[in-house]
Amino acid sequence: MSTRGFPEEEYRDRVARAQAAMETAGLAALLLTTEPEIRYFSGFLTRFWESPSRPWFLVLPATGDPVAVIPSIGAALMGRGWVKDIRTWPAPDPEDDGVSLLTDTLRELAADGPVGLPSGPETHLRMPLDDFRRVEAAAISFTDDHGVVAQLRAVKSEAEIAKISRACTIAGKAFARIGEVARIGQPMEAVFRGFQALLLEEGADWVPYLAGGAGPLGYADVISPAGPAPLCEGDVLMLDTGAVRDGYFCDFDRNFALGRADPRAHAAWARLLEATEAAREAAQPGARACDLWRAMADLVGGGESAGRLGHGLGMQLTEGLSITAKDRTVLEPGMVITLEPGIETAPGLVLVHEENIVIRDGSAEALSPWSNGALPVIG
Amino acid sequence: MSTRGFPEEEYRDRVARAQAAMETAGLAALLLTTEPEIRYFSGFLTRFWESPSRPWFLVLPATGDPVAVIPSIGAALMGRGWVKDIRTWPAPDPEDDGVSLLTDTLRELAADGPVGLPSGPETHLRMPLDDFRRVEAAAISFTDDHGVVAQLRAVKSEAEIAKISRACTIAGKAFARIGEVARIGQPMEAVFRGFQALLLEEGADWVPYLAGGAGPLGYADVISPAGPAPLCEGDVLMLDTGAVRDGYFCDFDRNFALGRADPRAHAAWARLLEATEAAREAAQPGARACDLWRAMADLVGGGESAGRLGHGLGMQLTEGLSITAKDRTVLEPGMVITLEPGIETAPGLVLVHEENIVIRDGSAEALSPWSNGALPVIG
Repeated sequence: MSTRGFPEEEYRDRVARAQAAMETAGLAALLLTTEPEIRYFSGFLTRFWESPSRPWFLVLPATGDPVAVIPSIGAALMGRGWVKDIRTWPAPDPEDDGVSLLTDTLRELAADGPVGLPSGPETHLRMPLDDFRRVEAAAISFTDDHGVVAQLRAVKSEAEIAKISRACTIAGKAFARIGEVARIGQPMEAVFRGFQALLLEEGADWVPYLAGGAGPLGYADVISPAGPAPLCEGDVLMLDTGAVRDGYFCDFDRNFALGRADPRAHAAWARLLEATEAAREAAQPGARACDLWRAMADLVGGGESAGRLGHGLGMQLTEGLSITAKDRTVLEPGMVITLEPGIETAPGLVLVHEENIVIRDGSAEALSPWSNGALPVIG
Repeated sequence: MSTRGFPEEEYRDRVARAQAAMETAGLAALLLTTEPEIRYFSGFLTRFWESPSRPWFLVLPATGDPVAVIPSIGAALMGRGWVKDIRTWPAPDPEDDGVSLLTDTLRELAADGPVGLPSGPETHLRMPLDDFRRVEAAAISFTDDHGVVAQLRAVKSEAEIAKISRACTIAGKAFARIGEVARIGQPMEAVFRGFQALLLEEGADWVPYLAGGAGPLGYADVISPAGPAPLCEGDVLMLDTGAVRDGYFCDFDRNFALGRADPRAHAAWARLLEATEAAREAAQPGARACDLWRAMADLVGGGESAGRLGHGLGMQLTEGLSITAKDRTVLEPGMVITLEPGIETAPGLVLVHEENIVIRDGSAEALSPWSNGALPVIG
């Protein structure tokens, strides 16, 4: 249970599959600039990405191992991983912040063709635009990556699934202790602080995401930070967390009634459980993301406006498919997703429930401790 | 002490100063896509940026108030702030993820000239490149923002300084309790977890950054996550945290000897305090970042290879100037910076010390509890 990282074979397998897809797409190399993209192929895990001061690059050539082109401050940590070709510069350098070193590396490794850059949904280029234009001006030819990286990352290995499962277990244990930090009269910001501490105690390495809300009929949105307002009797408290263990997220929420709840909240809760169960039953290989959306939307109402009712999950809080009316992504074994139906209880107020599952041959497997029964009452 | 956010006048002042600089630079509008840039002008504070699934936009026209072009999931939270023109789309939409809405908004607000995009050091464009090219193809003309946003953000208001100061106070209280979580025999990952919990208990809203290391003569790098190795007698433990209160960071570290320390560690520590003090004395309006670097590098050695010995601080863990040999940024009252000298104690091992200050007319003011005396011994 305490093993961190992956064996080198896991990375070699990812590289081999990427290179096969790159050949089909006619890419001479991939240029990766963001945290999950670089970590996926190198194992480079650090919270230092919180600092925007330095760009980081990983170049994956059409054949051979990846090459790291990184600030010298990262050389020691990268050197403890499997990537052996590590080229560094003393960043930040206001005159040339890695531009020459990256350009030279791309010239060497991708002389024969275009360099693929992840450019589709959920991606961005994590380097200053001015510097990117300098690399382009040096006659490096870029194209999009044809979704190579996103498609690889969408299907998790058993080792990845085990890490997500562990993060889910940790959050489940913290939720089971909610009574220690959430009581009538407690300000929401204190509840948020206390719940993060519980997640850490139960084994989270860090807590990148926590949102929530409270009210008799739910909450106005699901992305707000906490304020000083206290919990009141009859409120439904929702906490939604993305806690990380060894670089992988869980992402699910729980709802708790404080003392008692309005019958409309109880009814909404029951409907949310039905919707989640219906989506889990529908979540079999070959089904599409929009099929899961339909299974839930039919129960929670709202038609096309029901929005996103779940998404992929892994190295990021949200990644990959979206459970919407428009997403036709076909489910495959190994995809890890959230089911996140929401139901309007009054104008502008919602209750949202969320669970995490992995697609298997046959029925999906729950990764979060599956919710059953009545809306839990605490406090 | 418990006031959150800023009054509307703070945002109006930021907008007015940006618009004055935009006029000089000949910009018809600014397009902002990242968390700190959008929050700086709108006050929009959420941890939901952890999700990469949706782009967010704020358009600041040459005259008038900012316009938010955002996913509908953020409308309720944005609507509680001062920005009143909020245009939304149901993201994520695989067919048109805000591209048309953004293009129409830019056509309306920037018909007469180029749109400035932050494109210099530390910036990136947080939207898919494919979608950005669609906006460009719709005849929207972009240029860089001439550093308008970075220059504004570099000098903090008194209200901003108060928030950073509070974050520093919180971290100082947590460091004062280090003995509760760091003992000989304790695995580093448990120390990291426990210290994050202390930060939360002392009032941090969340802990986006924690790094550290331990060894008799220091540590091989300052960006690594924790592993299972236990603390040993004679180790110097370093913890470096960026804790957040109300959207503003502290960023300083502390070193602690476990039981006893090698005389070389004690000597290095004394030299680090001298260097920090020298830089603080040099940190007066009119001095340049490279002057502070020189003041420290002369004491800690390493010449040009001494790297970055501090940086700006605020809404991000690191932002603005870099204390390097090459950075000629001139200090102004209201700039908040870190002083972060490092000293090599043995090949490949360093001790690093860090404090936070604000530049004032005359002498700089310490924001972190200033370290004095001998290397603290615990455990």
